[in-house]
Formats: sequence, C-alpha cells, structure tokens
Amino acid sequence: MRGELAPLTEAGARFVALAEEHAADFGTRAGQHDREGSFPSENIQALQKSGFMGAPVPVDLGGMGLETPHDLMVGMSRLARGCASTAIASNMHITGAQAITRLWRRAVATGEERAPVMEATLRAIGQGRLVMCFPTTEPGSDLATPMVEGTARDGGYALNGLKIFGTLSPVANLFLPTFRFLREDGLYGIANAVVLRGTPGMEVLDDWDSLGMRASGSNSVSFKDCYIPKASAFETGGTWGVFGAGAIEIALGPNMSLVSAFLGIAEAAHGIAIDSTVGRKKGPRGKRMAERIPIQQLVAEMEIDLATMRAVIERTGRLADEFSSKYGLGESPDDEAHAMMKEFQCMKYVVNRKAIDVVDLAMTVVGGSAYMAKSPLSRLYRDARAGPFMQPFAPYEALEYIGKVALGEDPVLDR
Amino acid sequence: MRGELAPLTEAGARFVALAEEHAADFGTRAGQHDREGSFPSENIQALQKSGFMGAPVPVDLGGMGLETPHDLMVGMSRLARGCASTAIASNMHITGAQAITRLWRRAVATGEERAPVMEATLRAIGQGRLVMCFPTTEPGSDLATPMVEGTARDGGYALNGLKIFGTLSPVANLFLPTFRFLREDGLYGIANAVVLRGTPGMEVLDDWDSLGMRASGSNSVSFKDCYIPKASAFETGGTWGVFGAGAIEIALGPNMSLVSAFLGIAEAAHGIAIDSTVGRKKGPRGKRMAERIPIQQLVAEMEIDLATMRAVIERTGRLADEFSSKYGLGESPDDEAHAMMKEFQCMKYVVNRKAIDVVDLAMTVVGGSAYMAKSPLSRLYRDARAGPFMQPFAPYEALEYIGKVALGEDPVLDR
Amino acid sequence: MRGELAPLTEAGARFVALAEEHAADFGTRAGQHDREGSFPSENIQALQKSGFMGAPVPVDLGGMGLETPHDLMVGMSRLARGCASTAIASNMHITGAQAITRLWRRAVATGEERAPVMEATLRAIGQGRLVMCFPTTEPGSDLATPMVEGTARDGGYALNGLKIFGTLSPVANLFLPTFRFLREDGLYGIANAVVLRGTPGMEVLDDWDSLGMRASGSNSVSFKDCYIPKASAFETGGTWGVFGAGAIEIALGPNMSLVSAFLGIAEAAHGIAIDSTVGRKKGPRGKRMAERIPIQQLVAEMEIDLATMRAVIERTGRLADEFSSKYGLGESPDDEAHAMMKEFQCMKYVVNRKAIDVVDLAMTVVGGSAYMAKSPLSRLYRDARAGPFMQPFAPYEALEYIGKVALGEDPVLDR
Amino acid sequence: MRGELAPLTEAGARFVALAEEHAADFGTRAGQHDREGSFPSENIQALQKSGFMGAPVPVDLGGMGLETPHDLMVGMSRLARGCASTAIASNMHITGAQAITRLWRRAVATGEERAPVMEATLRAIGQGRLVMCFPTTEPGSDLATPMVEGTARDGGYALNGLKIFGTLSPVANLFLPTFRFLREDGLYGIANAVVLRGTPGMEVLDDWDSLGMRASGSNSVSFKDCYIPKASAFETGGTWGVFGAGAIEIALGPNMSLVSAFLGIAEAAHGIAIDSTVGRKKGPRGKRMAERIPIQQLVAEMEIDLATMRAVIERTGRLADEFSSKYGLGESPDDEAHAMMKEFQCMKYVVNRKAIDVVDLAMTVVGGSAYMAKSPLSRLYRDARAGPFMQPFAPYEALEYIGKVALGEDPVLDR
Repeated sequence: MRGELAPLTEAGARFVALAEEHAADFGTRAGQHDREGSFPSENIQALQKSGFMGAPVPVDLGGMGLETPHDLMVGMSRLARGCASTAIASNMHITGAQAITRLWRRAVATGEERAPVMEATLRAIGQGRLVMCFPTTEPGSDLATPMVEGTARDGGYALNGLKIFGTLSPVANLFLPTFRFLREDGLYGIANAVVLRGTPGMEVLDDWDSLGMRASGSNSVSFKDCYIPKASAFETGGTWGVFGAGAIEIALGPNMSLVSAFLGIAEAAHGIAIDSTVGRKKGPRGKRMAERIPIQQLVAEMEIDLATMRAVIERTGRLADEFSSKYGLGESPDDEAHAMMKEFQCMKYVVNRKAIDVVDLAMTVVGGSAYMAKSPLSRLYRDARAGPFMQPFAPYEALEYIGKVALGEDPVLDR
Repeated sequence: MRGELAPLTEAGARFVALAEEHAADFGTRAGQHDREGSFPSENIQALQKSGFMGAPVPVDLGGMGLETPHDLMVGMSRLARGCASTAIASNMHITGAQAITRLWRRAVATGEERAPVMEATLRAIGQGRLVMCFPTTEPGSDLATPMVEGTARDGGYALNGLKIFGTLSPVANLFLPTFRFLREDGLYGIANAVVLRGTPGMEVLDDWDSLGMRASGSNSVSFKDCYIPKASAFETGGTWGVFGAGAIEIALGPNMSLVSAFLGIAEAAHGIAIDSTVGRKKGPRGKRMAERIPIQQLVAEMEIDLATMRAVIERTGRLADEFSSKYGLGESPDDEAHAMMKEFQCMKYVVNRKAIDVVDLAMTVVGGSAYMAKSPLSRLYRDARAGPFMQPFAPYEALEYIGKVALGEDPVLDR
Repeated sequence: MRGELAPLTEAGARFVALAEEHAADFGTRAGQHDREGSFPSENIQALQKSGFMGAPVPVDLGGMGLETPHDLMVGMSRLARGCASTAIASNMHITGAQAITRLWRRAVATGEERAPVMEATLRAIGQGRLVMCFPTTEPGSDLATPMVEGTARDGGYALNGLKIFGTLSPVANLFLPTFRFLREDGLYGIANAVVLRGTPGMEVLDDWDSLGMRASGSNSVSFKDCYIPKASAFETGGTWGVFGAGAIEIALGPNMSLVSAFLGIAEAAHGIAIDSTVGRKKGPRGKRMAERIPIQQLVAEMEIDLATMRAVIERTGRLADEFSSKYGLGESPDDEAHAMMKEFQCMKYVVNRKAIDVVDLAMTVVGGSAYMAKSPLSRLYRDARAGPFMQPFAPYEALEYIGKVALGEDPVLDR
Repeated sequence: MRGELAPLTEAGARFVALAEEHAADFGTRAGQHDREGSFPSENIQALQKSGFMGAPVPVDLGGMGLETPHDLMVGMSRLARGCASTAIASNMHITGAQAITRLWRRAVATGEERAPVMEATLRAIGQGRLVMCFPTTEPGSDLATPMVEGTARDGGYALNGLKIFGTLSPVANLFLPTFRFLREDGLYGIANAVVLRGTPGMEVLDDWDSLGMRASGSNSVSFKDCYIPKASAFETGGTWGVFGAGAIEIALGPNMSLVSAFLGIAEAAHGIAIDSTVGRKKGPRGKRMAERIPIQQLVAEMEIDLATMRAVIERTGRLADEFSSKYGLGESPDDEAHAMMKEFQCMKYVVNRKAIDVVDLAMTVVGGSAYMAKSPLSRLYRDARAGPFMQPFAPYEALEYIGKVALGEDPVLDR
C-alpha cells in the first residue's frame, strides 16, 4: 500500500512482515468471531508459533529483538488490518514482554537479584509458553488510582477488587494486575502482581459482550482474597494518586501500539472502499463509481485522514524511540515524561477520532450494503469506536491534560 | 423535556401524546428486539389498536385527522425515542395513509372514479385492518429510476425485479412497490402496484440482518412474474429517469418524518447521558460528574446539536405545511418542488449527521459502559448510522443536488 | 431571496422592508468606511429620518410599534447585508428603545412616577432626536460584574472607570453605561446611568481601530469623577456578581438581534459567491463555474449553513417572542430566564461560527480575487470574526454555561 | 519551543538558526509593514547579507549547501514566525536557487552547454547580487496552462499577457515568468523566460493591496511585446495543458516550503496565546487564566493542531527528500510524481486549514483585544487565510486531485 508506514529497524521489518502474513489469515475469521463474540484462540496460537508474541524478547533469549516503540506500532497497525480484536489482545502481551525486556536490561546492568527470574520469563515468552494478561482498568478509577488492594498477609498480599477490560484473559496463563498497598509511610504504593491462572481467589469472568472489539476477550477479572507471595509483587515505584513519570511509563508501554491498531482499522476500511469503487458501475446509467467526482472527494478525505494518522504515528514513534533510548524504564524525569505523554495524547486524540472518520467515510463510499451485518465495514465501524474509551485518557480528559502540560500547570485532572 | 418540539395542531397534540405513551412501552423491549433482530409485531399491533397507525385518516373515516407534515414529524421523533426501528417501520405505513388521504381529497374534488375505493381503503386503515409496506429502494438505482418492471400481460402487469429495504414487510398485508412500465410514447412511466401478501410471484425474503435498525424488518421483496390487474396499478405521472415534481412529492411524503425519527434517537441518547451524569460520582475522589466542566461542555455540545436539529426540523416542517396546503399531491410546479426538496435535503443533511454526533457525545459522557452490548447507547450508535444511507440522497449526493438547485442548474445528479 | 427569514407581524414587515432599502444604500459606502475606519454618520441620520431608529416606539408615540424580538432579529439581519457595522451600531440604540418601551408599559401599568419621563424619552426617540449608546463591556469583567463604580456624592453619583466597545459612541448624544454602587445591605447593586454627551468627566476616546466592524465606532468611554444626579440612575434590581434573571434580560435585549446581524453577513457573502459563479467561465477550457460539481458542493455547504442559521434564529426568535409576552421586563423567574438564555446561547454559538464558515466558503468559491482588499468578501471575513467576541459569552464560556443549565448546576462560570 | 520541527542536516541546522535570528528581527517591523502595505526591502537585504537568500547554492559556489526539501521547509516555518510576508517572498527566490542548483548539477553531469551560465548565476545568488521573482500565477488559468504567450520574433520571443501574485516583485532584479509558445508539433510548450528588470515591455504594477500577506509585494507583472532572446527561454519540457511530472516538479519546488510558512504563522499565534495566558488574571475574582479548564482545552486544541501540522510536514519533507534524491529534476516518472504530489496535497490541505484554526483558537484564548488592529493576532488571522488560495490547488480541487490519483483515474481536474 503506497504511503503506508515503514519499519525503521531490521527486527521491525521482520515483525511487520509477520504481521501482514497473520493479518491475511486472521481476516478470514474476523467476521465470524465478531458475530459470535468468540475468542480467536487459534490466532494467538499462530502468533506464538511464528514468534510474533515473543518479538520484543532479545534474540539471545529466543525472540526477535524488536525493542523500539516505532516499529512495534507499525506492526500492530498491520495486524489490526486483519483482526483488530486479535491485535489489541496480542498487544497487551507483547508490550508486556517489551517492558520485561527493559526491566531485565536494567536489572542486569545494576546487578539486581531478580535478573535471572526475568531472564527465565523472557525465555519462556520467547518460546511461546506464556500468555500474559495485564488487567489495569477499573470502573471509575484511573491508572494512577487502582482500587484493587493488596492487604498484607502471611508475608504476602491478599488481593481484593475488580478489574475490567482484561483483554486476552480467555487464554492468558499469567495475570499481572496492578494493585495498591499500604506503604510504611502511610501512603499507598502501586505494584503489579503476578498471578498464575487457577490461583484461588482470582476469577476470570465471562462477561465481555460489547459493541465492538468483540473478539478481544476483555473480560473482567475479580479478586477475592487472592493470595500472592511477596516475590510475586513488583512495586512500580509510583505513589497512589500521583500521575508522575512512573505511571506515565506504564501507560505509554502498551498504549502506543494500542493506538496504532486503529490505523489498521482505518486502512482496512479504506481498502474496502477503494475495492468497492474501482471497477464498479452503479445507477441505471452505469457510470463508473470511480469516475464520480463526489466519490473521488470522499476517497480524498480518507487519504488525507490516513496521511495525517500515519504522520502523527510516525512522528510520535520516532519521539518514543528517542525517549526510550534516552531513559531506561523508571528513569525518566517527570517533566520529560509529561512532555512525552503529551505527544502521545495528541497522537491518540487524532488517531482515535480519525479512525472513526475514515470508517464512516468508507461506509458512505460503499453505500447501503455497508450497513449490512455481513459487511466487514459494519464491524470496523463498531471496532473503531473503542478507541476513545481507551486508557489514558478520554478525549475531554486528554484536552485538559495536554493544556495543563502546555501551560506549565500541575497536570492532575480535576476529577 | 424543555425545548422539545411541540405540535401545532390539536390532532398533532393527540398524536404526539400517543407517541410518548407508546415510546415508554416500546423502550422496554427495544434492546431485546435489537439483539435478536426480531420484528416487534406486538408494537405494530399496539399502534393499530391505539389509532396511531391510522392517524392521518380523516376523523370522519375513523382516523385522527392528522394531515400536516410538521406534526407528523414531531410525533415520529417522539416514538423513535423508545424504539427507532418501530418508528421507521410504522412511518412507512402512516405516511402512506397520509398520501392516500391527500389523493382521496383530490379524487373527491375532481370526481375521480377511484374515490370510493380510496375511501374504503382509508376506512380500513382507520380500523387498523391494513398494514402497508412501500418497497421503493433497489440496489444501485434511485427513486426516479426503478428497475423493477411491469410488463403488460392479460390486461395487467407481470412484475419482475428486486426491492430492498422493505421496512415493515414482516407484518404488512399490502405491498405497494414502485415499478416502471413502457408507455405508449415509448418512454417508461412509473407506477405503484398494490399487491396483497400471498400473491403468487411476490416473496418477502427474510434477509434483514443489519448493523442497526435491526427490528425494522427491512427485508428484500422479490417479484418474479407477479401478476397484478390494471386496477391495482396507480401511475404516479412521473417519467422514468426524471427527478421532477412527481418524484419529489413521493420522496417527501415518507421521508420528512423518517428524518425526524433521528431526532428521537438523539434525544434518547442525550437523556441517557444526562441521567448517567446527574447524581453520579466517579473517580477515587468522588467528584460529581455534573460538576466537571469538561462534562458540562460535552453536554452543551449535545444541547446545541439538539437545538439545531429541532430548529431545522421545525422550520422545514412549517415550510412543508405551507407547501402541502398550497399544492395538492401532484400539483406542485417543478421549481417549487425542487425548492422544497432542497430545504428537505438541508434538513436531512443536518439531522442525520447530528444524530450520529449526539450519540457519539453521549457515549463519551457515559464512558466505557456505553460500549457494552447491554447499553442502549450501543444500539443507538448503530441505529443512528442508518440515516445517511436513507433515500434520497446520500450526503455527497445531497450536496450536489442542493448546489445545482441553488445555482439554477439542471438538478440531475451526475451519476 | 428564497428561504430567507420572514417577519411575523405587520410592524415587522415594514421594519424589514425599510432595512432592505437602507441596506442597498449603505452597501455602496461600506467598503470606504471600512478602509478608513470612519463612522457612517450619514447612515445613522438616514435611519433616524426613515423611522428605523425609532421602530420599537409605540405608534402612538411616533414609532413603528415593532415590539417583538423575532422581527427585530429579521430586520437587523437584513440591514447587516449592506453594512454590518451600521447594523450593530444602530442595534444598540434600537434595542435600547425597545427596553424603554417595555419599562414604560410596566410603569404605566403600575403607576410608577417615572412613566412620563419615559414617555417623553420615547417621543424623542420616535422623532429621531436621540441617539443612545450603551457602554456595558469592560476589559476583564462581565455584564454582571461591572467595575465602573458610582460613589455616592451630593445626592448623586460620581462615576469612575472605563468602558470599552461603546458602539455608536461617535454620534450618540445620550450614554447609558452600567455601573455598580454600594447598597445599604453592604453589597453592590447595578444601575444604568443616563449621561448627556458633554457631561464633565465623561470622555469618548477615539480609539476604535479593529480588525473588522471598523465602521461601528465602538470607542472606549472613560469616566473620571463624572457626576450624575440620582434621577439619572436607574437601578436594574440585580446584585453585582449575580448572573440572574435581571442580568439575563439586560443581556438578551440587545444581543438577540446583534447575533442575527451575522446572518446578514453570511447572506451577503453567499450572494457574492453565487453572483461570481453564475455565468462565470474559468480556466483555459472555459468551463462554467456553476457546472463544476465541487463548486456546487461548496455552494450547498453554504446553503445548509444558511438554512441552519435561519432555523435557529427563527426558532429562538419565536421562543423570545413567547418569553417577552409572558414576562414583563424584570418579571421573569430565574429558571425561566436561564432556560431562555440557554436557547440564546445555543443560537449565538451556532450563528457566530457559521457566519465565519459561510464567508470562508464564499471566499473559496470566488477564488484569489476574494483575498484582495477591494473585495467585499475580505471585509466580511473580518467583520464575521467579531461575533464570538461578543457578550455574553465567549464560545468556551457558552459551553460551560449551557452545560451547567442543562445539568441543573449553579450556572455561574468558574472564572 | 518543545516539539518544534528539527533540521536533519548540518546545512539545515545553520539555515534554521539563521531563520530564527532573522525572525526575531523582522517580527519587530511586521506590524508596521502590514499596516502600510509596504515591502520590507530591508528584510530582503538582511537575508542577502546573512547568506539566507543563497542558502541552496553549493558551498563551493558561495552558498550554504542546503539542498534537501525537509530542512528548507523547517527554516521557512521558522522565518514565518517573525514575518510571514517576508518568508513567502524570500521563499520564491530561495526555492528558485534550489531549482537552479539541481539543474546545474544535472547540466554538469550531462555536459550540457548551459552549465557555466548556471554556475555563474549560482555564484551571483551566493553573493547576494540577484533577487529573483517567479511570476507563474494568472487569473483563471493554472500552472499547466499559462496564457502568457511567447510569440516567435527575431530569433526570440515577444511576451504578452498578465501574471498575478508576483511575490517579491518590488525588489527583484530578475523575473522568470512561465509562458507558452507554439511548438513545431503544433502544440504549446511551456518555458520560463529570464527577464531583467527594466526590460522594455515588462511592467511591475503596484497593485498588491490584499487582506493579508500585505508585505509580500505580490504585484501583477504585465508583459506587452516584451522581447527576450532565445537564450533567455528555458523550456520545461512540459506540454501546455498536461499536468504531468514536469509541471508537478515545478509546482513542488517552491510550494513545499511555502506551505510550511503557515506552520510558522500558527506557531506565532500559539506563542502569543500562551504568553497572554500564563500569568494573566482575568475577571473580578482574579482567577488565573491558565487555571481555567476551558482555556486549557483551547490550548490543547492548538497543541494537537500544531502536532498534526508538524507531523505531516515532517513526514512529507522526508518523502520529498527521498524523492529528490532519487530523481533529478525532470527525471521522475509520471506516476511517482503524482504519488509525491498527492502527499504534498494532503499536507497542504491539512496545514493550510489548521493554520487558520490555530490562529482562530489563539484569538479566542486571548479574547477581545485580539480583535484590535494593533494585535499581531489580527494580522496573523489575515495572513493565514492566504494559504488555501495558493497554487496548486484550491482545497476542493485538491480533493478531486487526490481522489483521482488514489483511484488510479486520470488526474486531470474537471475544469
């Protein structure tokens, strides 16, 4: 596709090529999973087998060595062309692997004692033996204020509370929910728990029944006195309620490429519209659709929107590459982290909205048949609307946040 | 609801009051019918029983005497608040009754021989014994160029071809498709056939499976050598391929109130958003949603959009009232008809788009729960998208048409 | 002009006819006054002579008896087609006359002692002997919080402070600034002063040099120990800092028709665009502009915007007619006043923005010549931008206000 | 400024640094030149002196060796922050120098006989002795269809016709208008004439009096039997009426960085808005502007628009760098040239519109004082509107063009 995003690294090129292969395959089943609301377990297995799920793992540890945000974003946009649900589901695991890789590098450099455990985890990911789910969202709270709480017990924690949007939960064998815990200073700290599937007290509800992204398996995950040992809790260093560099890095990790998946949705819709137009004659006089100036203009609006989406993704991806090569995980200063988050929010705002616009335009170009359940556009229309709901932030919150950062105000939302 | 549209006539007031009652009832089942894609036959029965379906029939003939477009638009917007599918389904029948009433008045005035048949039909409608379906849309053609053709045979016509979007077809007992027939002058004329359900050669397909408006029963209706006697064919006076006053009047009849149904969708979404906001506290700090300025601004955008929709509907309704009191059916001059059609198109363009916008805003206000299948907003989001597909015209065609009329160019689309 | 707004009363019809005559005349000089930034005194004289300036004065007292908001809005939109600066300048005086008429009616009904003074004032207005300027805006405050203060002195007040945007000030012989004064309850009240031109301590600065509306004479008016007797101060009943029914009524009076002037700007731009298109051939192949589909679509966008502007003005005008016939000046309950103000704000938001859009579209249709200083479009482009700055509120404040009213929150802006 | 565009080459870095210095200087006089409509000759002299005007000339020939489009775009956006008129004026000369450099390189490589003349020209440019004006626009024609005609006479051409928008004409000593001439094959070819100031028959009219960009000296240039020798005519290779690779390259040369000047306008407006907000208290309660959420949101909209503008400029600049390093001037195949032109048009469409939006937002943030003639925002508001008029294309033409290219249709506009 002329003008599409291109990877900047060799590992990225391999990753993107794999994404395109998988997309072609997944696209054949996307409609059915959407209708049934079923989870595409076979897609995840294929991604494990091809090495796609373990892409961020260093080559030495069995992965593809894909470590830069930009190329991860490109690949995820490609995968989403075939099945957006699979893309956002696999994205949680893959960006998790990316984060663990970054933590492992830091651990090795600083001689941290957990380095070997991390390395073993990465090898397992590289071998396709782990599927990770990161339940972080909760109803009515935000990334910096989890209400799921870990109460100290028996040298570990008892977890209680509810997570929603636990994407990939149907097949995950490892869950890493965030939770808050009381620190010695009397404030709450935030940590990630590592919980094996089947651990007593953790239940994956089967409650994902949504407008779109129906095959993403974003079930709720409930915790009732779910015990984890101390060693299974990884403190993020962040303080509950504080949206600082720590929380921002956690947010940027999975969400950069989550946003780029929406480019894939738009590209898929655009492709359908073009295909439906070129060569089609319509109306009793049989004028070619592609010859009609109003159709050309609608196509142009899609082109402009796609060019815009690609541009902001590429630019933000390059900035993220710089950012992540400059600061190790947990090492960025607050103001730099907010500056990066602000760029991310600008990208998210533009991409999420324009994805909706492009699908809408594509439906208009195609005409009434796009409104039928069997048209892939009717699925993309529903999938695309998921974007603005995604963490962090809602569009109106994004505006408040971006403005606060730009004006040098305390970037805590008034909520 | 403060600021809502108000009827201008007494008959309108009764019609609107009925609409509100029905809406309250239908709203309780709208979600289920949407999920199942089932047709709400019980709703149509209730509308027959209350007299709503026969509202345009003169009081003397057993109806409510609702004859002006404005109030019909207001009523339909109210009904759509409860169930948009039922509103657009019943609308086809009701506006059909309105057209027959107008034809009957003209027939009586001119001493036309069909007046008694029309009167009998109106009485039957008034008694709730008829349910009419008007299949006019076809794939790839337009209102002025039907491809369903009636070939002369045995003093009548054999109909062949396919109609789509035959709203209300599951329960209709009378079908009035448009068709073309060869006139003596060698051109095609256009007529409405009157076909009883069960007539050999006419088949109502069970193929309505759509993104939204899933309970409207808009099945395809196929005609294969379906014979109708001459007396069952009513010529519209229009010539095939000519979008003149005749075709315009036929288009305006059902579509004025079809468009206003989308105001009802927006009002319903707005109501849900307001209800979700007032009294709700969100976030770990428990700030009231209604207190948050960004939420207030989103609500304001909805208010402005609703005020705009209402204003253009009210203004166009008043213009239509004038138009229909000035010109009997089939009597408007071409330039006046185009001027009225242009106003209608402006209204349709604004209302169809703003309905989508308001639902989108409402979803943003409500947050992630609006994305769940069980949220009525996720249904309204899909229902609202139907508007721009509706006849005549698609948004890009509307722009071409409006511009041509405004510039005094021949208002035939380049298609 | 097909589709244009029409007056609802006979007095309105005469007013609108006059407006059209004046507009044709003023349009011939609008460009020159704009270039020079000169005040069109001759226009105001013509408006005095024709009775336009005294239109709201009852017929018995020498006026035209134009008392309803709707028709005043229609007339002002017509006048603005010729010269928007003259329209907004005369509007301040005319709506002032309307308010005095309403106060006089109340005074007569309640036997208030000032009724004869008011009557004499109205007769003077009817005879075209008075030109009134109402300086209410100040830098950094709002209508409910004037900082110009009247300090009690010698049984009257000494006024101090600065007013800006004193439209019509170059020729006004009577100034009615708002000011605050200390009440016995220790709070500030608000009053209008009546100050004759030439009163010591009041100075009309010659500082109006603006982007657009350059001929409106909206100079600053400064008050330095300007003494007025008690009889020249009219308390509004409002409390400083409280945006309640009193402040709202004062705001609605002049601003309803101020907003409608922007419809006139849009209509003028639209007319120029149409004229430039019909009959013009462009390009080396000489294709008629009106034949080009993209031009038709741009024209259609203007048509849709105009239809929208007219609809919201008509609807809000009708609501205002109801409101002002239901409640005498100073008699509306707070919640009703806010409901009316909310509708006004929706109208203002839409009309102000769409006026800018229509002029922008017209420039695009006309092409590069529209960018030349001698093109009236380049003036309309600058005039149109004045709208969103006008009281009350700025667009972002309007959103906050509308949302607060809609949600039942205290409608005081967070500023 | 955080997030601003950065040059990719060393020459670019020097160029951008110079641009910033000049902008700081020019900004002090921009208001005055705008008011007077005077040409900033002193700015052009300063740009000559610093080497800015000769930047694209190879270092060996006395220039800065700035040869890539991306960095030229960045520099021009910086210069426009201070004075957009000077930026677009100098841009014509500088991109002309860039084109001559490319032609010279090709001439050297192919042993063309004109190489020494070109080299001399480049040295003169490098020394700041030449100021070039490229009049290409005409009323009612387009870049591929100039109507200025060169009739064969005395072994050269007699030029006749009118050019408009001859930016930089007040001080140019060399004019290079496009013209058409009859080829031996009976078709018209297109060429650039080289005409010294003072040549009989060429007159620079003093008629630039515009809404904005008032200091750009974009006068008309008239040709009446203006004789040039054959050696002063450079055929472009393009055929009149054919918008192919040749015409596209000519269009891309000056217009890439012309568009980026509008980013500078937006950045200047944004800066003014931020400065007016931070630290300012407004309203009787003295709340800080920067603390108000609606203000934060408006600022955020500017930030998002700027991020978008920068992203599309950066991306298109990188693509242009690739394109111009891949294909020498006059060597690109048609489909590649159209693909590049399509990307350019997407960029132009976005940047021209968003520049207007950002200035509009900045005015809203600043409030009423932004509407005063003395506010730089009122100048930027007028300057920004020039963008959509600029060659090629108008926005509605751009949509048609982009759509045609995307759909594989013949990319000739229906005009």
